[in-house]
Amino acid sequence: MTHRHWRLIAHPEGTRFDDAIRLEEAPRPDPQDGEVLVRNRWLSLDAGTRMWMTPRTDGYQPPLPLGIVVPGQAMGEVVASRHPGFREGDWVRGFGQWADHSCVRPETSGLTVLDPRVDDIRQYLGVLGMNGWTAYVGIAEVGRAQPGETVLVSAAAGSTGLLALQIARNLGCRTAGIAGGAEKCRYLTGTIGADVAIDRRADDVPEGLAALGGVNVYFDNVGGPLLDAVLPEMAHYGRIALCGLIADYEEAGTIVRRFDQILMRRLQVTGFFSPDFAHRGPELTAILRGWHDEGRLTMPFDETVGLENTLAAYARLFTGGNLGKVIVRV
Amino acid sequence: MTHRHWRLIAHPEGTRFDDAIRLEEAPRPDPQDGEVLVRNRWLSLDAGTRMWMTPRTDGYQPPLPLGIVVPGQAMGEVVASRHPGFREGDWVRGFGQWADHSCVRPETSGLTVLDPRVDDIRQYLGVLGMNGWTAYVGIAEVGRAQPGETVLVSAAAGSTGLLALQIARNLGCRTAGIAGGAEKCRYLTGTIGADVAIDRRADDVPEGLAALGGVNVYFDNVGGPLLDAVLPEMAHYGRIALCGLIADYEEAGTIVRRFDQILMRRLQVTGFFSPDFAHRGPELTAILRGWHDEGRLTMPFDETVGLENTLAAYARLFTGGNLGKVIVRV
Repeated sequence: MTHRHWRLIAHPEGTRFDDAIRLEEAPRPDPQDGEVLVRNRWLSLDAGTRMWMTPRTDGYQPPLPLGIVVPGQAMGEVVASRHPGFREGDWVRGFGQWADHSCVRPETSGLTVLDPRVDDIRQYLGVLGMNGWTAYVGIAEVGRAQPGETVLVSAAAGSTGLLALQIARNLGCRTAGIAGGAEKCRYLTGTIGADVAIDRRADDVPEGLAALGGVNVYFDNVGGPLLDAVLPEMAHYGRIALCGLIADYEEAGTIVRRFDQILMRRLQVTGFFSPDFAHRGPELTAILRGWHDEGRLTMPFDETVGLENTLAAYARLFTGGNLGKVIVRV
Repeated sequence: MTHRHWRLIAHPEGTRFDDAIRLEEAPRPDPQDGEVLVRNRWLSLDAGTRMWMTPRTDGYQPPLPLGIVVPGQAMGEVVASRHPGFREGDWVRGFGQWADHSCVRPETSGLTVLDPRVDDIRQYLGVLGMNGWTAYVGIAEVGRAQPGETVLVSAAAGSTGLLALQIARNLGCRTAGIAGGAEKCRYLTGTIGADVAIDRRADDVPEGLAALGGVNVYFDNVGGPLLDAVLPEMAHYGRIALCGLIADYEEAGTIVRRFDQILMRRLQVTGFFSPDFAHRGPELTAILRGWHDEGRLTMPFDETVGLENTLAAYARLFTGGNLGKVIVRV
């Protein structure tokens, strides 16, 4: 019995993944004692994985060894279980592989049985998954957003950004999102109900940021020159919840030129990262599900069909081509 | 009746203050209703004032208007009072001027009557003043230093740094200070009891920082390349209490190249600044005085005699010439 998987054979350059990640036919893994074999139905594609594909040793995870099957969040059905907590037919989500099947140890992969009664099971990779947890923790806890405060979100048409915007709105904040292109901006103010959308590709970004009149919470996924543009527009005692630096994953270091504003405005910048609160999944999912069931928290999917098309979908995360959560239907 | 004062007549360049700040003979100010006239005995010289001397509008205070008498913390005796809270002969400290006398409104200058029973009244510009409050808030509250943690302090032979080191030691932390030159380093490990001293002028700073094995709290007064050297040596979940950026006061902006480490190590960087907690002076002074009276918190003074020698003393703050608090005996 064989299946297909994506193997990392070299460090990719930019978004040219074809030379670095190869689809192979390989023996289907056999679950050992304590392991579960999952037939993947959807893969979650996440920008953070890009950094592990580099040889950088200064990231939040060690670099992926060349030759490994690319790891990532995946969701599907259990086809064989040698673990007492999982049965054939269960819908599960966890840290698996970019492959037709994931063979995982539940304790180290965060494998969780899902409630199939949700209106769209894919939301376990959207509203009810890691991106939701990150958005909630970033806005409510790291950012300590208060009703009436101005919350600015970068990469706001991406999966985490869309959720951060909606959560801030649900908490009674004034919301502003930065996204690339007029269409995404219309989506933010129209469908999502953001108060302000700023098109990072337009030439009036500085004016747009200044017009906010002081940002209390900046939920940042991006870093780079955009962060430098935001720093002098932060309100005094503002908080920056730093959840990603997508502008700089390929090389070590991120240059920030207006670091002085952290002192001048007495800001607080906090780096955070979802594996640190993955153990709070049930608690966080309950909060998010409440909003979702009330129709106040949604996620559009950028769905690509076919495992063989994974790399093109993955590149869209870095070229700004996606609206919402990028997933692959296996 | 005349007295002398220092007037800002131009924006200084570097540490060439002679062209920019001029000693003048001028009429001694007459206190109006609600004002107090203080005969200054000591001036506190503080690096932060340097930034207000520039035309920068992005600092934590607006720039000083050219023509103003240079403001600063001062201590002395009340010689005339038109305020019910102050009597002739009281020892007081507050935000006055670089001059023989300060004429101040107590409500806006933080003017406080001092307890002359302290062993050395100058400590009201040292252990028991703004530097002490900043050091305590930075280490205990912003940095949340815990017993056994490693606390690193930059500009550790300066007034705030020396206090931050001692407070961290008093709280049961392992302490390391960065200072310029072997003599200051010997003072830190010898007299102050720091566990480690790193000479920033030596060529083994990176090795010294790496040997700390992970910094839990970095109390930073400096910014610049030193901060970039420290960032990759922070422990995960470390805190950076940012109280100054002495490397960069002259020009707008502070470049930090290893900002990525804030995300990778899930650090928290918080800018803070003493006027924000000046209202807590009595509470903070009581804590500091307790340690001082037990002999566990001290401050050496770099004392210059003569108001006319103020500028040379001020320059020492920026050339690293001082050990401890730089004051001028008027």
